[in-house]
Amino acid sequence: MTRKGWNGRAPAGRIAYVDGRYQPHGRAGVHIEDRGLQLADAIYEVCAISDGLLIDLEEHLDRLVRSLGEIGMAMPMPRHVLALVMHELVRRNRARTGLLYLQVTRGAARRDHPIPTEEMRPTLIMTVREIDAAGLARRQEDGITVITRADERWARCDIKTTQLLPNLLAKTAARKAGAYEVWLIDDDGFVTEGSSTNAWIVDAEGRLTTRQLSHDILPGVTRRVILEAVAEAQLRVFERKFTPQEASKAREAFISSATGVIPVIALDGKAIGEGKPGPVTKRVQQLYAHRSSAAAKLAR
Amino acid sequence: MTRKGWNGRAPAGRIAYVDGRYQPHGRAGVHIEDRGLQLADAIYEVCAISDGLLIDLEEHLDRLVRSLGEIGMAMPMPRHVLALVMHELVRRNRARTGLLYLQVTRGAARRDHPIPTEEMRPTLIMTVREIDAAGLARRQEDGITVITRADERWARCDIKTTQLLPNLLAKTAARKAGAYEVWLIDDDGFVTEGSSTNAWIVDAEGRLTTRQLSHDILPGVTRRVILEAVAEAQLRVFERKFTPQEASKAREAFISSATGVIPVIALDGKAIGEGKPGPVTKRVQQLYAHRSSAAAKLAR
Repeated sequence: MTRKGWNGRAPAGRIAYVDGRYQPHGRAGVHIEDRGLQLADAIYEVCAISDGLLIDLEEHLDRLVRSLGEIGMAMPMPRHVLALVMHELVRRNRARTGLLYLQVTRGAARRDHPIPTEEMRPTLIMTVREIDAAGLARRQEDGITVITRADERWARCDIKTTQLLPNLLAKTAARKAGAYEVWLIDDDGFVTEGSSTNAWIVDAEGRLTTRQLSHDILPGVTRRVILEAVAEAQLRVFERKFTPQEASKAREAFISSATGVIPVIALDGKAIGEGKPGPVTKRVQQLYAHRSSAAAKLAR
Repeated sequence: MTRKGWNGRAPAGRIAYVDGRYQPHGRAGVHIEDRGLQLADAIYEVCAISDGLLIDLEEHLDRLVRSLGEIGMAMPMPRHVLALVMHELVRRNRARTGLLYLQVTRGAARRDHPIPTEEMRPTLIMTVREIDAAGLARRQEDGITVITRADERWARCDIKTTQLLPNLLAKTAARKAGAYEVWLIDDDGFVTEGSSTNAWIVDAEGRLTTRQLSHDILPGVTRRVILEAVAEAQLRVFERKFTPQEASKAREAFISSATGVIPVIALDGKAIGEGKPGPVTKRVQQLYAHRSSAAAKLAR
């Protein structure tokens, strides 16, 4: 077996931030005894970049603080410094449209399950990448299809940890089935959320439904911004559980994540509503896009 | 924030194996976009080393093959070559008594949830370390205490993945409570297993009970070897669920893992049996030690 060249796989010029240094993406690594690698002892966030601005930055930082706290960690640096580094990384990568990925692990230590009692120096990793803007625009315009699958995740899906194996296995199953996303179903038969998105349905009266916050779902930043925006626009929203059966009878459906709002036009092979993006979903897309870009510009 | 020196934290002379190369432990790393680090898309094994021999090696390799298969991965190299590398790493580290840690991740790729459709080159990591033999001997002789806690893990605990955050949080809670291990309790009130060990109880008639294999527990290598050994010795064993209440009334209890058999002398602050290691547990320790060392010598 020859050596795998992780030194050579990144696009030229991409800059990552790891452990206090800006460095070429292709050469950026962590120690093999990093607890993030060995024990999934790590938290992450993904921020959208639009026009070079970080969308919903404060909300992402709020959630980062909360997730870290839930597993007994503090921020790896003061919040305002972290935000400065994030902006600087976007600038150094000359990113206009893309994603900033941020991961904080508990740090490197001799492998052992218990959290070390000595003070740990967390590992902070950030990368920036372009996204396929044309593909995203097409999905936002045309919608996507979704399948359902049992939710096999752990009991604390409200914490944004790197324990993503069930998510990626479910998403892979969706792609193999020709679908874009998968809605996960809890033991009682209700939709929790998508494998990397929150799930929404719209009824015949134009009312929105999305699952209420609990340990079962991620408190999506985009979910929250949408809730605020639709409340201002006086659309009605229910935060409660719904089943795939209710979803299949919905007028419209959509998913939300850091990359925005994407219509769902079919569930498990059956069209939702007229099988095309509906007017309420389009309205939510507009409200979200308007609100987020305005907020990003204000925070600049 | 200054650069964290993961270059400088390992004991001098320790050798790791990463991506086809033997290299100084302190300088061994993986790329920041390794899927093991970002998505817990990885499997691991831990083998005990005794007298320089790998204990229960074939059983660990069997389980590795199974775990990899369950998440759609193949062995990173032919099995007999992998075994040779493991032995060589033990030799290079001059390890007589310790642990070999082996991790296989799906490899490095641009971050995205679905398993990449192009062929991946998995990342293979191995480390060897000494153990605190005196501490282990003391625990095996004197026993340990255990607390209980809700099992928050995912639905496929039979796969040995690096999604260990719930395990390490539970173990940390145990240590804070002055206990050594924690027994995890499922939604129906039954013990699944320890956070990194299988759980056993012994009744007044000297009969052993340990939970049957399912998606809820790891198929422990030591568990299996014990089952074979006690069957040969004509001890009676039940493979079924038990509650903490049943455990607290047991005559004896113990845990099993790659580091062997350790008596449990108290559960949630209440003594089990006479509050000291019992005769059946000692007999199991002897049977296991005899069988494993004999097998390791045969396989040398």
